[in-house]
Amino acid sequence: MQTTRKPAPECPFEKRFPSQLLRDDTFFMTLAYNQAIDAWRRGEVPVGAVIEREGEIVALAHNTVENSRDPTAHAELLAITQAARALGDWRLEGCTLYVTKEPCPMCSGAVLMSRLKRVCYAVRDPKMGCLGGASDLNAIPTINHHLEISAGEIMEEDCRVLLQTFFRLKR
Amino acid sequence: MQTTRKPAPECPFEKRFPSQLLRDDTFFMTLAYNQAIDAWRRGEVPVGAVIEREGEIVALAHNTVENSRDPTAHAELLAITQAARALGDWRLEGCTLYVTKEPCPMCSGAVLMSRLKRVCYAVRDPKMGCLGGASDLNAIPTINHHLEISAGEIMEEDCRVLLQTFFRLKR
Repeated sequence: MQTTRKPAPECPFEKRFPSQLLRDDTFFMTLAYNQAIDAWRRGEVPVGAVIEREGEIVALAHNTVENSRDPTAHAELLAITQAARALGDWRLEGCTLYVTKEPCPMCSGAVLMSRLKRVCYAVRDPKMGCLGGASDLNAIPTINHHLEISAGEIMEEDCRVLLQTFFRLKR
Repeated sequence: MQTTRKPAPECPFEKRFPSQLLRDDTFFMTLAYNQAIDAWRRGEVPVGAVIEREGEIVALAHNTVENSRDPTAHAELLAITQAARALGDWRLEGCTLYVTKEPCPMCSGAVLMSRLKRVCYAVRDPKMGCLGGASDLNAIPTINHHLEISAGEIMEEDCRVLLQTFFRLKR
């Protein structure tokens, strides 16, 4: 079943160290960006996620699909599991997920099912994204939870260049 | 954050023991049904899943959201992680997922992302299901993988009565 994969190229980007004093969307997205860089350094597609509640970080994760050989090990899903463990409840009410790209079908579903308050993502994904890109699960009227979405507003270019460079160098 | 939950009622249904000689859709769905009964006995919404490849079972799981306090701990997602571990690859090519109800948005996305060959589900879910019920993620043209779907054909009534009885007794 194993396919031979070309090793990931070395990551030419560096992490950033924002001040902890201003905990705005850019602060949390910067931490998600740093997670994406960690993903790249471990040979994974560079996607990172952070979950915040009341100004505190409750989860930090990055994509580990290749290393864990687990198709469900996306940054968002790992962060949701981590946040639920930290909060002692699977209902992530009042939480915001920051993620460097628009969630895939699975992760878009997961943010709905875990009852997050808000999702803020950097890069839109018109091909696979399911929070406005290829489809919008948040718009299904029969689903009894809906999210606030901020799309493509925070660090869009940084996160896009990171992803595009990864795929360009990998080819 | 914890909400007080009414304890689950005792499960009035019994597991079934099909012959191992005929490994057809009903055989595998029966094992998924037995997993759903195990879920109920542990106080969980009774949903079970099985993953099969070339006539062999590679994963068996049930919903554990309440006990693990993890919103991602749906039967399908746990089975996918288990199957990927068993096969040593996150691409579940050639595999069929049997599940007692139509997958939710998250799990519908997960079966696409893990490149399963086929999904066979018992009970349709017009409210939350995303493989034909409330939405159909399999029909998004830009997603580069598509599934064969068998919906509502195998053990539909058994799995529906199981779920309906659980929610009726829990009220």
